[in-house]
Amino acid sequence: MALPVRTSFRHIRRFIQKFTISRRSLSSAVRPDIKEPLLLGRVFSGIQPTGVPHLGNYLGALGNWVSLQNQYSSVLYSIVDLHSITQPQDPKLLRTNILDMVASLLACGIDPRRAVLFQQSQVSEHAELSWILGCLTSMPRLRHLPQWKMKSKQKNEGSVGLYTYPVLQAADILLYKSTHVPVGEDQVQHLELAQDLARIFNHRFGDLFPEPRALLSSTRKIKSLREPSAKMSKSDPQTMATVFLTDSPDDVALKIRRSVTDFTSEVTFDPENRPGVSNLVSIHAAMATISVEEAVSQATGLDTGAYKQLVTEAVVQRLTPIRLQVERLRSDPAHLEHVLAQGASRARELAAPVLEEVKQRVGFC
Amino acid sequence: MALPVRTSFRHIRRFIQKFTISRRSLSSAVRPDIKEPLLLGRVFSGIQPTGVPHLGNYLGALGNWVSLQNQYSSVLYSIVDLHSITQPQDPKLLRTNILDMVASLLACGIDPRRAVLFQQSQVSEHAELSWILGCLTSMPRLRHLPQWKMKSKQKNEGSVGLYTYPVLQAADILLYKSTHVPVGEDQVQHLELAQDLARIFNHRFGDLFPEPRALLSSTRKIKSLREPSAKMSKSDPQTMATVFLTDSPDDVALKIRRSVTDFTSEVTFDPENRPGVSNLVSIHAAMATISVEEAVSQATGLDTGAYKQLVTEAVVQRLTPIRLQVERLRSDPAHLEHVLAQGASRARELAAPVLEEVKQRVGFC
Repeated sequence: MALPVRTSFRHIRRFIQKFTISRRSLSSAVRPDIKEPLLLGRVFSGIQPTGVPHLGNYLGALGNWVSLQNQYSSVLYSIVDLHSITQPQDPKLLRTNILDMVASLLACGIDPRRAVLFQQSQVSEHAELSWILGCLTSMPRLRHLPQWKMKSKQKNEGSVGLYTYPVLQAADILLYKSTHVPVGEDQVQHLELAQDLARIFNHRFGDLFPEPRALLSSTRKIKSLREPSAKMSKSDPQTMATVFLTDSPDDVALKIRRSVTDFTSEVTFDPENRPGVSNLVSIHAAMATISVEEAVSQATGLDTGAYKQLVTEAVVQRLTPIRLQVERLRSDPAHLEHVLAQGASRARELAAPVLEEVKQRVGFC
Repeated sequence: MALPVRTSFRHIRRFIQKFTISRRSLSSAVRPDIKEPLLLGRVFSGIQPTGVPHLGNYLGALGNWVSLQNQYSSVLYSIVDLHSITQPQDPKLLRTNILDMVASLLACGIDPRRAVLFQQSQVSEHAELSWILGCLTSMPRLRHLPQWKMKSKQKNEGSVGLYTYPVLQAADILLYKSTHVPVGEDQVQHLELAQDLARIFNHRFGDLFPEPRALLSSTRKIKSLREPSAKMSKSDPQTMATVFLTDSPDDVALKIRRSVTDFTSEVTFDPENRPGVSNLVSIHAAMATISVEEAVSQATGLDTGAYKQLVTEAVVQRLTPIRLQVERLRSDPAHLEHVLAQGASRARELAAPVLEEVKQRVGFC
């Protein structure tokens, strides 16, 4: 499928018109509860319902989400359950994981008054737009995208859902005419598909979608406590490798005590040659909201064993209120469902007119 | 993806339970306006919005649709616009074609009180269930299905929508727990996918979907008037090859007069050796609702030229009221849109609880 030439004057003029419209519609979304001037734009991001997040999620994507909700005039965060079933799921566990994810997001500071927090499958427009965009996507375009290449190999044979995963992602983003999407490096190619599909649609049916831009975050990656060359991961088979937001202080202490370091007792920050101890320094700095240099300086005179106690204290201090809040929220699933229902209703308000416009342009109505 | 063993006792018991439930829910759908006893079951069929149908459609699928609406207790007919965009469409023409198709179906005898007549894209549950079923379909399963094999070759490169076309078809059918699906021979493999997906879903999430059965119709295929080895087709580049329901009597006469026959003047029915004249006999018999033998007997003493006049009369007599009705209906698009809106509302009433149940089983709620 050929892409439209990006530099034609007509295209540029239309883009300017479109951007003007966007500014107007977005500025009306400025929220009265935030005093500082907000950046104009609409941020969209999604997270799979994998249950309670771990330290890596918290210091990576979620920390970024909390910052963004306070920076942009319009922000949507979706728990993408339609994406999660592209890999087999246990239904009961999936339901629990969805609610645990809501509880965790709220406990980490996502504020449903500032960000529209919703469950993807509750907004039918995602699947509908995904079908339409799939009709504008050529089959070979998806073959080399990361989600398929990684996961279809793991399972030997992927599903149609896994193959078309990035098309649904593009629908998630474009459905709200999102302008900014926080992405990790592994998602850049998927965002490029969304940009391509915005261009293809605009070219064929007239300008409608802004091309969403990547917000690359500079957060440091937290590594596995057992194998500091790999990212910290929920699915790590080594239970000692991953700290979850709901781990008790004893669990946190045990996991950090058992974390892999090396045979040098002094604490330095040298991720290449000393990945284990450097990972602890990263965690310490991030949890205590100090710089890496300050963290290393606090470790002066401590061997790695004693330093682990210091790191544990920083982690426990930061996680304790989150853990208590997650536990409180989890005990009231009706409240969590109410939060999701309200979020879905607000998301639908934004999505419905866009999908209606798409349907008109395509010729359905 | 392994299919469940079909013959386990547990499966059979569940099937019996399911069937009992189906009977109850379906018998409540018996319509008071029809006196004769109706067959229990739910029929689903879809047609692409290609505009005004031709004689082949009328004597094939549509004639069958009219019969079925009077035979079964619950019948749904969908104008499948989501399917139509798997090939590029002109949006204005698509909208016109959708309304022309509604007008034609009504004019041919589809009664919205007997059959739920609706536009697929107006019922969001189709795309939603299609996504979920796509997560249960392995990629290779679709590679050899007819729609992809035929159409991706024509265009050199097919879209994701074209590849996943049969999954949406399966969703169309299963969404209403349909029990019977009228299919042409070229669609048997697609129905098999729907049956497989019903089994896969039932096996993984507990029995929900009946396995839909094929209703193979025995209607004779109408051939091109210009090349009687090929089926009559809307997209035939030879304008004289295809009679549309809205063709004027003069157009019908001209097309039939120009139809390809052979050098024997006597009229006989011998499709293999005399495809052209036999096609005329088929058309004559079907339009005059007489047997092929009766049609041949009426042609005794006529050469093919004179017989063409007889065929023309039969066609014009049958088509005239349909043509006038299509024209009347076309002049009132608001009425056609109202019919579609009512149909969508009734379809949604049936689809929503099924999708809700699917979502619960999958773990979304």
